[in-house]
This record gives sequence, C-alpha cells and structure tokens, in this order.
Amino acid sequence: MAEEFALIAELQRRLGQGGSGVQTGIGDDGAVLETQGMPLVACTDTLVAGRHFFADVGAADLAWKSLAVNLSDLAAMGAVPRWALLNLALPAGMAHGDWVANFCEGWQALAGRAGIRLVGGDTVATDGPLLVTVTALGVLQGPALLRSGARPGDWIAVTGTLGDAALALERQLQLRRGEVPEVLPGTEDWEERRLRPWPRWELGQQASRLGLRCAADVSDGFLADLGHILQASDVGARILVEHIPLHPALAAWIDEDWERLVRTALTGGDDYELILCGPPARWPQLQELARAAGVQLSQVGEILPAGQGLQLYWHGQQQQLPSRLGHVHAL
Amino acid sequence: MAEEFALIAELQRRLGQGGSGVQTGIGDDGAVLETQGMPLVACTDTLVAGRHFFADVGAADLAWKSLAVNLSDLAAMGAVPRWALLNLALPAGMAHGDWVANFCEGWQALAGRAGIRLVGGDTVATDGPLLVTVTALGVLQGPALLRSGARPGDWIAVTGTLGDAALALERQLQLRRGEVPEVLPGTEDWEERRLRPWPRWELGQQASRLGLRCAADVSDGFLADLGHILQASDVGARILVEHIPLHPALAAWIDEDWERLVRTALTGGDDYELILCGPPARWPQLQELARAAGVQLSQVGEILPAGQGLQLYWHGQQQQLPSRLGHVHAL
Repeated sequence: MAEEFALIAELQRRLGQGGSGVQTGIGDDGAVLETQGMPLVACTDTLVAGRHFFADVGAADLAWKSLAVNLSDLAAMGAVPRWALLNLALPAGMAHGDWVANFCEGWQALAGRAGIRLVGGDTVATDGPLLVTVTALGVLQGPALLRSGARPGDWIAVTGTLGDAALALERQLQLRRGEVPEVLPGTEDWEERRLRPWPRWELGQQASRLGLRCAADVSDGFLADLGHILQASDVGARILVEHIPLHPALAAWIDEDWERLVRTALTGGDDYELILCGPPARWPQLQELARAAGVQLSQVGEILPAGQGLQLYWHGQQQQLPSRLGHVHAL
Repeated sequence: MAEEFALIAELQRRLGQGGSGVQTGIGDDGAVLETQGMPLVACTDTLVAGRHFFADVGAADLAWKSLAVNLSDLAAMGAVPRWALLNLALPAGMAHGDWVANFCEGWQALAGRAGIRLVGGDTVATDGPLLVTVTALGVLQGPALLRSGARPGDWIAVTGTLGDAALALERQLQLRRGEVPEVLPGTEDWEERRLRPWPRWELGQQASRLGLRCAADVSDGFLADLGHILQASDVGARILVEHIPLHPALAAWIDEDWERLVRTALTGGDDYELILCGPPARWPQLQELARAAGVQLSQVGEILPAGQGLQLYWHGQQQQLPSRLGHVHAL
C-alpha cells in the first residue's frame, strides 16, 4: 500500500494538476467535476499486455495509446475531452521509477494536446500481465454522434487514411518472427504512427456543434465499425471502395489487389479515424471545418434504406463481403 | 471479439436498461449522461483475484463487492449514486454463461437498491487473474465531503460498527489454513457481511445536503483513513477509543484487549463505514437523519488544531499509536 500511495502521489504530481472544471482532482475518495450544464460523455477501454499491445512496449507509447483509444471514443461521440481516470494493474515486483516517469511523459504528450486532465484512478499489483484501463469523460456542446443516428440518403465519410496501422502491425509481426519485411518507401514512420495514433477529437466535437448526429470510430476495422452503425440505425449502405482514403505508399503496395485492400483498409482496425454520416446539406460545412483543421476527409459512400444490406462496389463491380469484417484484439 | 460482444450484450440486457439521466447507455462508443447542472463525482477501484478477494469467490458476491467499494467512495464524497462503468478482465477460456448470470444477479441486488445504472464498460481476456474495475459516477446536491474539510473543534463520528469485517477475514483465513476458528456467538452472518458490505450512500448524501464538508470511508482501516483526513485538513485529532462503535459480539471477544482492539476496529479495514466530521451546531441534525435512516452513528472524538497529532485515549489514558495504521490489500 505504501508503494501504491507513492505511485499515486507521483501520478498526481506529474499529471493531476489543475484542469478545466476540476473542483477536486486526485487525492480524495473521488473527483468533483463541473460539466456546466452540458451532457456528459463517459467511455472506457482496457488494454492487456500480449493482447492489445506487445508486452515489451515502452511505457510512454503505452500511455499514449491507452489514452488515445479513449479519446477516439470521445471523438466518435462528438465530445470535448475533459477528464480521465487511470487504473493500472502492474505485475508484482515491477520496477516503478523510470517506468512511471516514462508513462507520465507519454500520457502528458497526448493529454496536454487534447486538454484532458487526470482526476483519479487506482493502482494495483497483479500476478498476471500488465493491464491499463482508462476511463475518459467529456462534454457535449451539440448533439451526441450516435451509431443509431444514420438516415437513408446520408453521405458516409472517413477521416485520414485507413489501413496504415494494419500494415505496420503486419510488418512488426514479421520482424518479431525473425523475417525481413519488404521495404516500403514512404512508410518509415508507420511503426511510430501505429504506436501513437492521433484520434480526431477536434473534428468530432466540431461535427457535433454542426448538428451532425452519427459517427463511430474505426477501431475494430472499417467494415466492422460501419456495420455497428448500420445495425444500430437499421439502415443499409453502399461503399465505393475506390474512394476509401489510402496513403499513397499503402495504395502502391496494395496495387489493386482486393485481398490486400480488404486485409488492411477495410478490416484492419486500429486506425482511430472517424466514420461520419450526415445529410447532404451539411457536407460543405463539414468539409470546410476539416480543411481548416488540416484533417483529410473523404466521402466513401451513402446510407441506404433498411433491408439493402452493406454493398461494396469496386470499380463499378459489386464485391462479396469478406467473411470477417473486423480484426480480433489479439496480437 | 464475438465472445466479447456476446458478453457485453448480456450485461446490457440484464443490467443496462433505463436509468435516471441516461440519454444513451451501453452499446455506443460512450454513454451520454445528464447531470442537470449538479457537480459530478467520479471514483474508481480495481479488485484483483487473490489480492482483494479470494479467487474462488462466487460471481454474485464479487459483483456486489466491486460495486460496493465504489458506492462507499461516492458516499464518502456525499454524492448521489447515478451511473457505473464495468471493466472485466476474465481469465482466458473461463466459462461465461453461469458466471455472467450470477455476476449480474449480485450486481443488480446492490445496484437496484442504490439506484445506480450500468452505462458502459469493457470486457477483455487475460492470462492472469480475474480483475474487476468499476468506475462510479454520482452527483452532488450539496457541498462535496472532502478529506480536507475538517476544522478544529469539529466532532468526529463513525457510522455502524468497526472491526467486524477484519475479524470475519481472520476467521476465513483460519478456515482456509485448515484451522478450526473459535466459535463466536452472534457472528454467524459475518462472513456474509464481509462478502456483501453495505455502503452508507444514503447518509453520505444527506450529510452533503446538510452542508457538512468532511468525510472519508473506512476501507484501509479507521486510523489510516482518519489519518488521510488529518493530513489533508492539516489538523490533529483526539479519539476516545472506548467510544469506537463495536458490535457486542466483537466487544465480547476483544474483552478489553488493546492488541485485539487495534487489530480489528482501529486498523482492520474493509468496514465501508463513514467517518464524518462537522461543527457542533450540525450534530443534532445529522443524528436525527441517521436515526431516521436506521444508521448507527457514534461520536468518537474531536478535531484538534494542527500540530496536535493523532491522540488515542482509552479509559482516560493516552495510548501509543500502533506502528501500522491500516491494512495492506493482500489476503
């Protein structure tokens, strides 16, 4: 327990100072927070060593990613990030000093940019693998972006590019098997990008303020996450696959190979980009906001009425849906 | 992942329906919650199999306790319980069917009474021990009850009785070592009470509405938790140990043995009772509220000015502080 309190004190000292709407932060039985009348958004994710991240990952990268996946959920709800709670289950006997300092460094590098403040948490020892649970809280300045908010006639848009993280993971797995991955020009920083995804919290909250009502983040794979929208909204969709945004290096590697395209951009996951849906009248405004924010935004299809299913078109030909729409959280 | 979604669907079906202020519950990227302008309180605790609970505990008892420890934190802040998130790390290959049904039964037995609603969470597989993280959210209808809220001249009061859980744990550990514990008349239900503590969320929120400003829950041991108040408030305290509320069966067993008294009621922990501090003018009102709620409430001492330390008096004699003020979270 002494060790637990020392760790909490260090996290508090490094990460828990001040913050918007924080009446009381770390150090009491709970945090006291002011939403100023705005609806609250709460989301949480647990990452397990050996499953969601390599057990030898650096503490700074782990901190970044464990916060990023939650910021991505807040973005997908349209929320402004505000506060976070951090539950660490650390292998018993693990050295704390450098690890905690590095964890704090990686956390703060992202938290500072996103304006999210650590206000609570818990640290425990475990005989099993390292686990990180982050719970992120945000506020809404417009409607929530719900999976159930898509309507027939809505455009379907995607931020950034898809599939880069999946290819970076493939490369990393090859390296760990002792294989020599194919060198792909223009992808030198992809491992860094896989480790430190940049969620789209700015565009998410702007979409909410604009009055949009539907989004999901791409964490399990584009088709799987789009599938969640279609199911929750009880609608179908037509996707024009050639409009799926690809990094030029990934496009060159895919080289019009359908299986490679499916494996990376369509089902690969861990992109932490946003799928947004909305009525045609809102498209120019969203495009303008994305341009101003420097976020690539691509229309990739259209929401169809219920019963139309998920239709994939590629160069004018309808394609079969892959048997697996997303990836399983296992390295 | 299919398994994860099936488990989430079951938790949603059994635990996640409706609830006050829930715009959107389980099933989207995050929950959308309405605090109606009241300050939010957020707290979280992680329990690890083999450390915070016996690995063979029943799922229903585990669910109850993992929620109870968080309700106790909300109570200690003076908050009205509203919403919870649940992160489960389940040993890979663990059978889900009955376990989940039992977990939901135990959760709902407490959640229904406390009026707290499950609105989100995450389930993952782990190669290590079972972990349960609960994050509880509540709202304040008065000032927050802070560890830093004690002032010289305040009375110090405690709800319920202290030390029962510690003795029940001693008995359980003896049984598991194959020893035959001494039979203690009147304690037949203490194992049940150890497994299913009743936090004081009602009196906590009433104390806040009454305008009190200081509380902590007794989870680590009375002296340890009182110590957190003294440190945060920069005050001292005088405790009249003979006023510490004891169950008659525990009092009979202690039989005026100082070491037994220290080991159970003063440092034993896991009581999930409240320590409350407040000015003399508020005492009659709090007493009335406790009486109406059927909660035993005992004055046990007084807050002293800074520099006076923590003074223990027992039958008129000052006693030495024990070297350990609380218990370590390890079975």
